[in-house]
Amino acid sequence: MKNNEILDQLNDENIDSMFIFKPENIKYISDFYPSSFAYLIIDEEPVLYVNSIDKQDAQANSSIETRDIEKLSKIKDLLKGNIAVENSLDFEYLKFLSDDIGNIVSSTVIEDMRTTKTKKEITNIRNSIGIASNAIGEIDFTSTEKYAAATLEFDMTINGSIKPAFDTIVASGVRSSSPHSLTSMNRVESPIVVDWGAKYDHYCSDITRTFIDSERQEEIWNIVLEAQRAAIDIIKPGVKLSDVDMAARDVITEYGYGEYFIHSTGHGFGLNIHEAPNVSYNSDGVLEKNMIVTAEPGIYIPGEFGVRIEDDILVSNNSEVLTSSLDKKLDFSL
Amino acid sequence: MKNNEILDQLNDENIDSMFIFKPENIKYISDFYPSSFAYLIIDEEPVLYVNSIDKQDAQANSSIETRDIEKLSKIKDLLKGNIAVENSLDFEYLKFLSDDIGNIVSSTVIEDMRTTKTKKEITNIRNSIGIASNAIGEIDFTSTEKYAAATLEFDMTINGSIKPAFDTIVASGVRSSSPHSLTSMNRVESPIVVDWGAKYDHYCSDITRTFIDSERQEEIWNIVLEAQRAAIDIIKPGVKLSDVDMAARDVITEYGYGEYFIHSTGHGFGLNIHEAPNVSYNSDGVLEKNMIVTAEPGIYIPGEFGVRIEDDILVSNNSEVLTSSLDKKLDFSL
Repeated sequence: MKNNEILDQLNDENIDSMFIFKPENIKYISDFYPSSFAYLIIDEEPVLYVNSIDKQDAQANSSIETRDIEKLSKIKDLLKGNIAVENSLDFEYLKFLSDDIGNIVSSTVIEDMRTTKTKKEITNIRNSIGIASNAIGEIDFTSTEKYAAATLEFDMTINGSIKPAFDTIVASGVRSSSPHSLTSMNRVESPIVVDWGAKYDHYCSDITRTFIDSERQEEIWNIVLEAQRAAIDIIKPGVKLSDVDMAARDVITEYGYGEYFIHSTGHGFGLNIHEAPNVSYNSDGVLEKNMIVTAEPGIYIPGEFGVRIEDDILVSNNSEVLTSSLDKKLDFSL
Repeated sequence: MKNNEILDQLNDENIDSMFIFKPENIKYISDFYPSSFAYLIIDEEPVLYVNSIDKQDAQANSSIETRDIEKLSKIKDLLKGNIAVENSLDFEYLKFLSDDIGNIVSSTVIEDMRTTKTKKEITNIRNSIGIASNAIGEIDFTSTEKYAAATLEFDMTINGSIKPAFDTIVASGVRSSSPHSLTSMNRVESPIVVDWGAKYDHYCSDITRTFIDSERQEEIWNIVLEAQRAAIDIIKPGVKLSDVDMAARDVITEYGYGEYFIHSTGHGFGLNIHEAPNVSYNSDGVLEKNMIVTAEPGIYIPGEFGVRIEDDILVSNNSEVLTSSLDKKLDFSL
């Protein structure tokens, strides 16, 4: 049971109980995703506290005991001994802003566990990838970028995606030269970067394809593909995260486009779209069996266009590209 | 300028500078919505700190000075004197969990300002409501609830909605008896509760219509409508929030369904889908000019069905129902 595994780890950190309120961590531990205000306390007898609106669902679906939420002013009484909270940006900010945050520490124990996926999580991510992969065949580029995104999202939703894993990116023409370009109300031009994912049982998928139609675009696309292959080729347990990033980066740099690869090569995902590990040149740590990471090098030439290719890889001694059913190069018409 | 207004208020609270990192508050103050990690510091010379990925956009669109983000360990040096953070659930938790959180206080100054909308905000919300209202005419109930939601969301997206303001609810048949029912892969039955909204320039809309087709459903629907009218009729500046809730609640109670009205009558919205004020029987405070609130009573009969009707109201001496172009009763076919 996940609670005991977390508790053992917390005890090693000299922590007696932990306060959890991120919905994705509650889902991870209890298998119940709250629709409203909820919190979970980890100790020898873990309890999930939910709002009245979630009570029936939680009792039916949570793997741990469920009770009614208590007033915030009472929560301290529910915890024993040395207390930890989840690691969060809010907590990080407060730590750096405050002279003293009293008795509280944060623990990354749950985020650490979440980096390697269970069998059930891998199945959910496979399903999420299946929904996303099928949907790209239904995308319609004959109108605006927003229209194209809407056709893709529509197909994911009717096939069981709760919602897009993140705001779908359809960035075309010169707008593709920014990796975070917002999907616009402009007509689709070439090339077209589409970065999208589904959510199945709250688990994400994350794929990018770039649709190209000129020699210049193909030249850049081939470099990005070679870089991605170099990264994917070395993905297995024990390999340094920074080496995976550099494998892709070195290819792009050799071709003279290093300065235009302005993000890291990949990241973990699961219940969140961005999770540890970060596959970056300045990451510490190594890949582990059953991590799932993206490999997504890109080249963004200012004022011209951008190309990115992204696949999802399950790490093992025989790493599996979970998105392999989807061709790297896809036909399209405007 | 919003910064000076916030600063004056902070000085009254004996605070010298404030650390802001919620994207919606950054948008409210600077008019720029960050796509990535960003924070903003309020003092005499306010600065927005953004990630490299947002730099160009922020410089083009932010109304306040933009700089590169600093390491978290440096943020304290950017702030002067007594420091405040935004009011957040995380901060509330920490306050109750910790023995002592040092020198930090939280301030609701920005959330308080955001309760009354500026001209520009009202225009954005009108546009968001326009997109959402038009889309309901395109909903297709002939397949699953998910399919219906997808048809509605598709129409909002192609007409300029960034994304749904929240997970669209299509809850039909017995599933409508829970106010937070998830949109399912089951075929649509009657009655159908549809609760939806768009996001235009990051501003939400929030509407509910219930599609009915039997006498029993109509009986309940008429009670909910009478309750909603009773609430809307008294909405103007100076009226107690609790009186608005009770106006609707009293009608439903008189008809004997009080125990089945299991949420509050309404809430503010804007950059977030739920904002102050909460229109509840236990709310303190009164309505103010230029607040925008929902009026959404409902009756949920366990094991049978539910009915909710929700409109958006701009508070003034002549309060305006912003969603009035949309009929309360809409035709449909399954």
